[in-house]
Amino acid sequence: MTASSLLDTDAVGWLREVGQQLRVDAVRCSSAANSGHPTSSMSAADLMAVLLSRHLHYDFADPRAPGNDHLIFSKGHASPLYYAMLKAVGAITDEELLTYRSLGSRLEGHPTPRLPWVDVATGSLGQGLPIGVGLALAGRDLDQLPYRVWVLCGDSELAEGSIWEAAEQAGYSSLANLTVIVDVNRLGQRGPTRHGWDTGAYATRFQAFGWHTVEVNGHDVTAIDRACTEAEEHGGHPTVILARTRKGRGVAAVEDQEGAHGRPVPNEAEAIAELGGQRDLRISVQSPDLEHHKPHSFAVLGATPPAYEPGWSIATRTAFGEALAALGGNRADVVVLDGEVSDSTRAGLFADAHPERFFEFYIAEQQMIAAAVGMQVRGWVPYAATFAAFFSRAYDFIRMAAISRASIRLAGSHAGVAIGKDGPSQMALEDLAALRAVHGSTVLYPCDANQAARLTALMADIDGVSYLRTSRGETPVIYSPEEDFAVGGSRVLRSSPDDQLTIVAAGVTVHEALAAADDLAGNGIAARVIDAYSVKPIDAATLRRAASETGLVLTVEDHYPEGGLGDAVLDALAGNGVTSLMVRKLAVRLMPGSATPAEQLAMAGIDAAAIVMTAADMVTRRAELTGG
Amino acid sequence: MTASSLLDTDAVGWLREVGQQLRVDAVRCSSAANSGHPTSSMSAADLMAVLLSRHLHYDFADPRAPGNDHLIFSKGHASPLYYAMLKAVGAITDEELLTYRSLGSRLEGHPTPRLPWVDVATGSLGQGLPIGVGLALAGRDLDQLPYRVWVLCGDSELAEGSIWEAAEQAGYSSLANLTVIVDVNRLGQRGPTRHGWDTGAYATRFQAFGWHTVEVNGHDVTAIDRACTEAEEHGGHPTVILARTRKGRGVAAVEDQEGAHGRPVPNEAEAIAELGGQRDLRISVQSPDLEHHKPHSFAVLGATPPAYEPGWSIATRTAFGEALAALGGNRADVVVLDGEVSDSTRAGLFADAHPERFFEFYIAEQQMIAAAVGMQVRGWVPYAATFAAFFSRAYDFIRMAAISRASIRLAGSHAGVAIGKDGPSQMALEDLAALRAVHGSTVLYPCDANQAARLTALMADIDGVSYLRTSRGETPVIYSPEEDFAVGGSRVLRSSPDDQLTIVAAGVTVHEALAAADDLAGNGIAARVIDAYSVKPIDAATLRRAASETGLVLTVEDHYPEGGLGDAVLDALAGNGVTSLMVRKLAVRLMPGSATPAEQLAMAGIDAAAIVMTAADMVTRRAELTGG
Repeated sequence: MTASSLLDTDAVGWLREVGQQLRVDAVRCSSAANSGHPTSSMSAADLMAVLLSRHLHYDFADPRAPGNDHLIFSKGHASPLYYAMLKAVGAITDEELLTYRSLGSRLEGHPTPRLPWVDVATGSLGQGLPIGVGLALAGRDLDQLPYRVWVLCGDSELAEGSIWEAAEQAGYSSLANLTVIVDVNRLGQRGPTRHGWDTGAYATRFQAFGWHTVEVNGHDVTAIDRACTEAEEHGGHPTVILARTRKGRGVAAVEDQEGAHGRPVPNEAEAIAELGGQRDLRISVQSPDLEHHKPHSFAVLGATPPAYEPGWSIATRTAFGEALAALGGNRADVVVLDGEVSDSTRAGLFADAHPERFFEFYIAEQQMIAAAVGMQVRGWVPYAATFAAFFSRAYDFIRMAAISRASIRLAGSHAGVAIGKDGPSQMALEDLAALRAVHGSTVLYPCDANQAARLTALMADIDGVSYLRTSRGETPVIYSPEEDFAVGGSRVLRSSPDDQLTIVAAGVTVHEALAAADDLAGNGIAARVIDAYSVKPIDAATLRRAASETGLVLTVEDHYPEGGLGDAVLDALAGNGVTSLMVRKLAVRLMPGSATPAEQLAMAGIDAAAIVMTAADMVTRRAELTGG
Repeated sequence: MTASSLLDTDAVGWLREVGQQLRVDAVRCSSAANSGHPTSSMSAADLMAVLLSRHLHYDFADPRAPGNDHLIFSKGHASPLYYAMLKAVGAITDEELLTYRSLGSRLEGHPTPRLPWVDVATGSLGQGLPIGVGLALAGRDLDQLPYRVWVLCGDSELAEGSIWEAAEQAGYSSLANLTVIVDVNRLGQRGPTRHGWDTGAYATRFQAFGWHTVEVNGHDVTAIDRACTEAEEHGGHPTVILARTRKGRGVAAVEDQEGAHGRPVPNEAEAIAELGGQRDLRISVQSPDLEHHKPHSFAVLGATPPAYEPGWSIATRTAFGEALAALGGNRADVVVLDGEVSDSTRAGLFADAHPERFFEFYIAEQQMIAAAVGMQVRGWVPYAATFAAFFSRAYDFIRMAAISRASIRLAGSHAGVAIGKDGPSQMALEDLAALRAVHGSTVLYPCDANQAARLTALMADIDGVSYLRTSRGETPVIYSPEEDFAVGGSRVLRSSPDDQLTIVAAGVTVHEALAAADDLAGNGIAARVIDAYSVKPIDAATLRRAASETGLVLTVEDHYPEGGLGDAVLDALAGNGVTSLMVRKLAVRLMPGSATPAEQLAMAGIDAAAIVMTAADMVTRRAELTGG
């Protein structure tokens, strides 16, 4: 095997030359862009020269090949190095290299999957490693292929807690197919890192979490090669290679200097000369063995999706769990992740039925989302579940998942004040705002069990980040099990030609709206009721028709007033024409405490009584304003 | 000293009795509520009996006394234990204890500062320890008082990355005044934890991060007492006491049983009898020495806030940094935290001027926010700065800060596509939505340097979570240095009786709107321009007047379309009456890549040209619709 053979003098010389070429090209593209991070690239150039030339197994002509290794630049700002590597393997031309950071270029400031060789976007530090953990889990436990996951980290990003969530997960899971290379160049953006070149400090930490560690001089290609071989051959544990390097290595004006982060070298021509000039070496990367291209496929036996009789009382979280378990029986690609609350989210029902496709992340939501992103790189269809409130812990990961063009499904239980006694720390009251604002996201909020079950299954085929908001308490089943629900749809639950106003609700407030409509009807006010279960995209056409026909729109949501259902409705109604319209929003405006669910809805002013009162007031006010 | 004396038999017996009383009362209040976590309380009862009786220095009659120790229940679900402790020290009555989790009670499902003895809300796991780190930093470096910070953690929450950010910060900072007691009861919500009773696994990890560790039997009061004394006497390092305990200890029906989490014991009377019946022991807690009640005060020499000449070009982030440095020269209570990007956020200008009040958290945003929350407990006025995009990393901490009724100030630089070439990972495009949705928050987005400087100073006196969004690039100074800006205000920058539409902008888009208005004027369209620098609360009165006078409103924001400025404007306009109005929103709708700032604004359709085109179209469309 190449990787274990000793390097001869020619090989050493060649690897050094490759490292210099990568440096030169990092300098060139960042100078062309007048922007970027050449010094953070130069420190890691020798590491990547050795990895590419002697250890990575990857077919650049077929980046989706199942047997390919995966290389994640967790330190995404070293993108000049990454693009220089793509040029060195012939994946991109020198001409494209020099489009770095310019309008329309695939070579963005930080790598994104606009390039087919990039699995996931990086640039928010501390994310590449936990995503790599997800890929390593996929490789060992799902694909069951021997591909290796290589992650290049910076030393600064080891301060992120997400790194240690990943260290725990990988160490405990004995992910021997995962190797992390840390470019310990001792300088962060604004100055020295906490531990400088003390690779021992990092080694002690990783060892405590069950990792194999190797400390090397990151500019000694022989030592790097030996370390990579050691990582490949070491069984039972993930390996971290802690490489002491010098930022800006090879150019005296910037080498190991503070104040040289994130900017081109001061003199491009001098720097290139100092590095020995331009080269055009071509690295031929080993392809994975063909026999490693057939991923494992799980047998599925078929399953009947759950069906609930109208009139029953079932929590939407329960319907989610039952539908997910059935989905797993019909689709071999569905995998489920949970953060130590699968009894509450009901993801445990999937775990019981398909334990080999269920992953427990304990209370580490960042790692959970990152793993979902990693698994979908390999075509798996991940659902990640926790309390809706606790996705806020992983919001940066969700944001980055969108930039990764990742398709992941989030199921958040225990939404809103309706959870009752546990109090505000457990209540998601800003999740609709946060998830709506994610680029390309889909936000679904079912009100009954059949709807929840249908939407759960539907999510498997939604591109991008999709989010299902489920409720803790039981709600009456109001839809038939046969009824179908589409993304972007809604249901008009009460309607007549005489409707005087429209009530728009979702989830738990749908039932309050229905009760309110009954009450209002008794008082001579006909109210249209719309179940806006698809909060994003929202059914703008139905809302506009209702607004135009009734003139009054009242939104009701178990969420803070900003950025949720009410704002989505306002946006749908604002768009296209001059309208004569009064809209009011009922939402949670005071900080809740503990109380029963019914008391919470009443205190928040989002229960049937509050809807009745507000609706009646709106009708009266219109009559006053129009002299009617 | 009490703490170091040996326990005699009577003391041991009494402490055991206190532990049993705490268990009984945890059982009683959760049974009364028919809700809550008695078993998670019973595991830690002996730990807290010893702490309260022999180690905590706290005046329950004066919870704000500067010399008080601080006790944080990071495992906030053990609230029955905490409330039982409050009863045992006489802070609350037995009657109030039994109001647990009921409507209106201060005794919420998870502790919040509605109780004067609670520093911060907990309940989202993994937050109490990093907040404790902030308090310990405040104690040693700001107050310069010998109070001790005690944190009770669960074992499950040690999976959270935020715990290891805190472990790193505390170990590296040698916070000997911090003691963490981990209740290792081996059972999480849904089953066994990763490491069970293997306290050694945790000890190895904490030691790697520079902590002193003690492993004890958490039901042996003598051993607990010795461990607390060891923590108090150990210099140079924070201490973690890893206590092996049994969940539900003392009641056979639930002790060390799975499936007994988060619910009352099955038979209250039997459980109380098994625990030896009700007791009414009263713990007398040691008060801190009076001499420890005088916190340090930093000398300030006075400073002149920055002033910028209209016409200059200055980045708002620079004005923030300069204003912050001046503020620090005038107010001794201002402290600044940054996450290794102080050269970019410009918080480094404060660090240069007031190094003793500047705290570097490296790239650990969760710990940074938690520390800000901890410091404000002691009356310090913290500003925390990073790239606006990276506050998403700490969103759960910001959410919880609101529940803690904490006053913290966030300054996020590098907002929006206007940053240019770095690409989407570095662009905050969902921050306005996320921050607006935080309960009680204030969201400010200045467009020029004088406004940024004024708002920076203003934030010092804002209650709750306030957020300042600053820009990377330079923008022209358009306001006089004398001009004052209030929360909830706006500025009408162009206005005439003939205005045909209103353009609402903030930050970078204000300058685009002004250019557009000039262009539109040249084409015979008078446009009002409003600088809505206070995004929340927004100046609804000015917006309504403009909407009513012009009939057309166009919002322009460097943010995704959901939950930002446009939605805030729609909300302000929706409220109160029947209006005849057309509103359109310009926002970032496509995923950006890399390009120059001007190219980014153009690609996103939020530059002057896009405003001109949309405004003209709106005017035309109105004319068509109204037959004008």
